[in-house]
Amino acid sequence: MFLPEKWPSYYEKAEGCTVWDLDGNKYTDVCIMGIGTNILGYANKEVDNAVREVIDKSNMSTFNAPEEVYLAERLIELHPWADMARFARSGGEANAIAIRIARAASGKDKVAICGYHGWHDWYISTNLGSDDGLGNHLLPGLAPAGVPKGLEGTTIPFQYNDFEELERIVLENKDLGTVKMEVSRNFGPENGFLQKVRELCTKHGIVLIFDECTSGFRQTFGGLHKAYGVEPDLCMFGKALGNGYAVTGVLGRQSIMQAAQNTFISSTFWTERIGSVAALKTLEVMEKSRSWEQITKTGNQISDSWQRMAQSHGLSLQISGLPALISFSFKSDAHLAYKTYITQEMLKKGFIAATSVYVSIAHTQAVITDYFDALDDIFVTIAKCERQELNILDLLESPICHGGFKRLN
Amino acid sequence: MFLPEKWPSYYEKAEGCTVWDLDGNKYTDVCIMGIGTNILGYANKEVDNAVREVIDKSNMSTFNAPEEVYLAERLIELHPWADMARFARSGGEANAIAIRIARAASGKDKVAICGYHGWHDWYISTNLGSDDGLGNHLLPGLAPAGVPKGLEGTTIPFQYNDFEELERIVLENKDLGTVKMEVSRNFGPENGFLQKVRELCTKHGIVLIFDECTSGFRQTFGGLHKAYGVEPDLCMFGKALGNGYAVTGVLGRQSIMQAAQNTFISSTFWTERIGSVAALKTLEVMEKSRSWEQITKTGNQISDSWQRMAQSHGLSLQISGLPALISFSFKSDAHLAYKTYITQEMLKKGFIAATSVYVSIAHTQAVITDYFDALDDIFVTIAKCERQELNILDLLESPICHGGFKRLN
Repeated sequence: MFLPEKWPSYYEKAEGCTVWDLDGNKYTDVCIMGIGTNILGYANKEVDNAVREVIDKSNMSTFNAPEEVYLAERLIELHPWADMARFARSGGEANAIAIRIARAASGKDKVAICGYHGWHDWYISTNLGSDDGLGNHLLPGLAPAGVPKGLEGTTIPFQYNDFEELERIVLENKDLGTVKMEVSRNFGPENGFLQKVRELCTKHGIVLIFDECTSGFRQTFGGLHKAYGVEPDLCMFGKALGNGYAVTGVLGRQSIMQAAQNTFISSTFWTERIGSVAALKTLEVMEKSRSWEQITKTGNQISDSWQRMAQSHGLSLQISGLPALISFSFKSDAHLAYKTYITQEMLKKGFIAATSVYVSIAHTQAVITDYFDALDDIFVTIAKCERQELNILDLLESPICHGGFKRLN
Repeated sequence: MFLPEKWPSYYEKAEGCTVWDLDGNKYTDVCIMGIGTNILGYANKEVDNAVREVIDKSNMSTFNAPEEVYLAERLIELHPWADMARFARSGGEANAIAIRIARAASGKDKVAICGYHGWHDWYISTNLGSDDGLGNHLLPGLAPAGVPKGLEGTTIPFQYNDFEELERIVLENKDLGTVKMEVSRNFGPENGFLQKVRELCTKHGIVLIFDECTSGFRQTFGGLHKAYGVEPDLCMFGKALGNGYAVTGVLGRQSIMQAAQNTFISSTFWTERIGSVAALKTLEVMEKSRSWEQITKTGNQISDSWQRMAQSHGLSLQISGLPALISFSFKSDAHLAYKTYITQEMLKKGFIAATSVYVSIAHTQAVITDYFDALDDIFVTIAKCERQELNILDLLESPICHGGFKRLN
């Protein structure tokens, strides 16, 4: 994904934003931080202690964990439009649960989607009949091998900020009962996009689902939708919810969530206790540290510094994403080669880095300063390549990295 | 499920086979032991210590956990027919992953199933068109609300030990590429059933999947299929694999597993480290204690004692299931009422108990002796009900329990 053939791949331990590989090499992670799971840094003491306590008392029993109820109450408190919650262990599951519930509630199979919503059949079926359906949402050219052909046409993609396209899809598909989307993609909403989507769904009795697995807790204390004042019918949380411990959840209005009683949704490990305990403590530490403000501020600072550094070397960047999930790309055909070179050279300097940063509260000013000190030389070299004084392909010690997920390019 | 309105529901702590509820009441669990997750007992010290160590070193990072590789190697060592593994967090996921891979490998959408394989669309779609498809596999009369109608006919149920039925299904459906089944149901294979299924699949190029989520590690050190000498193309493990920690996996032959490369299967928390570390230590403790032999012996002893106790009171029982997952039902129309009464009265005596026992190594001789001492009075009363000297409905303090999963009735 980042550095074919040269990526260290495996780790021995991690703490804050420091990671040690199996050979004892130490790296500062200014990259994806466990794929966005650790806003409070790796091995956060308060969260880990809460988990240790629950291990002492057993993480599992024939009876259920009361912490699951407390977590539901806490998330509903943070999202007053919601009444009920269900928990799972991975984001793909949470997405599939939400779709099952929405389809059961609406009685309609068709779903309009915008964004990345996991690996399950309902979503990958978008590419049945055309390999380009998910081109702008996940990966270009993805073959839907192993997804049943009977699902063709059930999931219809729409482009972010293109309200007319979504409206047309809704009008043309009377059997469409659900709209599922990310609240923002590489860029945020324009011209009241989210409000218009909400009104359209309300008018047509469509279940509106916001996938907050990635965006949750990055910019507000809860869903990103709180920043825009638009309320969905269901939303999912994942990734950062348990600061690295596996817990995800579906939050929703009672009128929709009750449909879960008319179908079968169940799995042994959804009630395992570590997930809910870790999430409860994570929310407590987030609230205390106002982590969403801190990581947004740091992300904005990183964005500004990238731009300044690029300008000083005559390079041109495109910045995108939420401040706490900030990315840049070079305005150059050689972008992926440059990205690979950054990863290659930054690893030599002790940093895990590419062109995206999932910001955590462990990314202190000192870390950011060191990161930019290390990056400067590399930008100098890339500028020489852009001026054709050097050939980037001569500098790469491995094949060029993959394009990666669309949102992270 | 067990005792409507009267079940304690939530727990404070658990250890061995003892569970404390939120009011400090202490119970001995001679019931489902976390739905079959804890063969080594709750809060097993060795497994828990391994997890604590990995929490100290962070359970997550941008790099992957090497323990995932060690776990794959260990499971392949125990199942030499397999070459590759993938891990997930819940059994439903592992089932859905296996189906995606099998469909991608075979290029065919249709699946024949026998048993319980999770909550996902591919499985519940069995009931599209008929609510009875899963009647003998999961629950009778289950409505497939929220499952897309385009999946109708893709999953075809067959009865365990009815080889002629499966053969007919295979011959009538040229687009059937997968057979997924539990290795045994309430009863084991008869007349070489598993061998015949294997030969049929091989002959027709069908991917044979054994769902060992429940049966794994109960009777052999690995899949139950090892006891019968029949090798699948893929199998799944779950439940007991991590002794209560959330980890499940798909094991398979390289020729089939490689198909995963042609589709998109990915989730953030599948690589979280607690699961693989817990599983590695669980396998070590299982091997050392030969837990599968111990729980099988205890289960056989429980079965014999149930029969003896029933006979001594003039009651007639039907015993079913693997010894380590042993169940009984009264040969009486009032079975569910009697089961409810057992749960009600055993709770008063400090036992979590119904009519099934998921045996763990914490179920010592002393525990079993106390359990049967407590049960004897209750069988006396049930015998009086059978002789119509008492009315069971007068004795129940709550509604009669649900029928439950077919395998656990």
